[in-house]
Amino acid sequence: MKPWMIAELPRIEAALEAWVPAESPAQLGEAMRYAVLDGGKRLRPLLALAAARSAGASNEGAAMRAACSVELIHAYSLVHDDLPCMDNDVLRRGKPTVHVRFGQAQALLAGDALQALAFELLVPGEEAMPSDLSAKLCRLLAQAAGVQGMAGGQAIDLACVGQTIDRAQLERMHCLKTGALLKASVLMGAACGGVTGHAWLALERYGTHLGLAFQVVDDILDVVGDAATLGKTAGKDALNDKPTYVALLGLEAAKVFAHQTLAAAHAALEDSQLPQVQALHELADWVGGRNH
Amino acid sequence: MKPWMIAELPRIEAALEAWVPAESPAQLGEAMRYAVLDGGKRLRPLLALAAARSAGASNEGAAMRAACSVELIHAYSLVHDDLPCMDNDVLRRGKPTVHVRFGQAQALLAGDALQALAFELLVPGEEAMPSDLSAKLCRLLAQAAGVQGMAGGQAIDLACVGQTIDRAQLERMHCLKTGALLKASVLMGAACGGVTGHAWLALERYGTHLGLAFQVVDDILDVVGDAATLGKTAGKDALNDKPTYVALLGLEAAKVFAHQTLAAAHAALEDSQLPQVQALHELADWVGGRNH
Repeated sequence: MKPWMIAELPRIEAALEAWVPAESPAQLGEAMRYAVLDGGKRLRPLLALAAARSAGASNEGAAMRAACSVELIHAYSLVHDDLPCMDNDVLRRGKPTVHVRFGQAQALLAGDALQALAFELLVPGEEAMPSDLSAKLCRLLAQAAGVQGMAGGQAIDLACVGQTIDRAQLERMHCLKTGALLKASVLMGAACGGVTGHAWLALERYGTHLGLAFQVVDDILDVVGDAATLGKTAGKDALNDKPTYVALLGLEAAKVFAHQTLAAAHAALEDSQLPQVQALHELADWVGGRNH
Repeated sequence: MKPWMIAELPRIEAALEAWVPAESPAQLGEAMRYAVLDGGKRLRPLLALAAARSAGASNEGAAMRAACSVELIHAYSLVHDDLPCMDNDVLRRGKPTVHVRFGQAQALLAGDALQALAFELLVPGEEAMPSDLSAKLCRLLAQAAGVQGMAGGQAIDLACVGQTIDRAQLERMHCLKTGALLKASVLMGAACGGVTGHAWLALERYGTHLGLAFQVVDDILDVVGDAATLGKTAGKDALNDKPTYVALLGLEAAKVFAHQTLAAAHAALEDSQLPQVQALHELADWVGGRNH
């Protein structure tokens, strides 16, 4: 991680800490905080903050709300994904998963409430954020989270277990399942920075390539990583008979593909002609080189 | 049902039909449509449409979006509520529940995607809805659905199983679990009708009383109704050892309380001094007299 990323992390944690409620009915907030705080790479918030600043100036208050809202959607998706009826995972970020700690029903509700909170963060009122920006951010987030985004990708993932799928199908699954929210992180940040036109389209391509690279690297790490480094169960894709880039292309070809995809992300940033894209370049490098 | 309600139902169905996608990744849309279409009393949409017209004129396009968005949140909550880790119910509106028909994982995802779609409906872009209205509707919906609303109420419900709770605690649970979304239906409609100030506060009281009355009547029906009329398993509250108004007050006193609460809803409408509240009066009567 670069120094600027390390410097941002406590700001992101403090914002999440402030916005995910400690006081709540029947300790639901406790399960929500357990799911969100003190863990995670915070890649999505960092992307949002970096994209917000790419044009030079940004609405920093709005950018932090956008950054945290995508992280809440990510966190809720992990809680639901870990449930016994989905991946049935018991370890996440080195801790027992939410349903292991709080029970399945409370985990289900905590995920549901986190999704609602993600949208609530984006509509703080005209004094805190212009309404047209609120509406735009809600639109980007809702599309990325829904049936034509993350939830749809997870449905494909479910349907693919034990199936032989081709590369185009695998790419479509990942574009939706993880790519949509990563791209939304970039674009929601860009909206807070007032990015439009050609530069907007370039950042959209950056987000698409970055999202794909993230997933290929994830598939590679699932094979070559270990649980202690990953903070989650390693080798679970193969165990669950899930299609991956490594299974489809082989390990070496998957590594080559990851590099090509990252190169396309860097090229899109150059093409954007935005003045401050160094942080976004560094986040792409981080995605490529991460070991968890 | 009054003629105007019967006349509205096909319009609501058509709007839901158009907005819940038929084409989708891995048949996720199919599960979403199964959960939403061809069933339900549509009380929440009717409340939103009636409240939108209470001031005389309304943004009818926005009102239908608001009406459908609350119904999508309601539908998602039923899908998740029926899951084995929650109420484990197999029958809903006379049909097998979503997880019985599509599997638990798909039901979980369909609920998640319906929540995202609810918010997406509210942000169609400036041409279709002014951004300040979009932002206001999203705020009302997010607060009503989240930890301080419906999800929080369900968490209390979970925590109360087998517990002895007092009347204040029961009322708080229901205010959140069902009341928050019913009140939001009224207020989101009111926002589309441009209602403000004193009249807004009066409609807020109407929504609170109506929501409470709805739940008391629900508790009464769970005792005196039968599965054929209800379209769901009767007597399940007692079976699941859940606290209800009937259990707490006795059947006769619960009926008296329902009448008092409905009277307060009617009084709030009178106090609003809005020109067109007849439809809202009729919806309160319907809530009081419904047999399913």
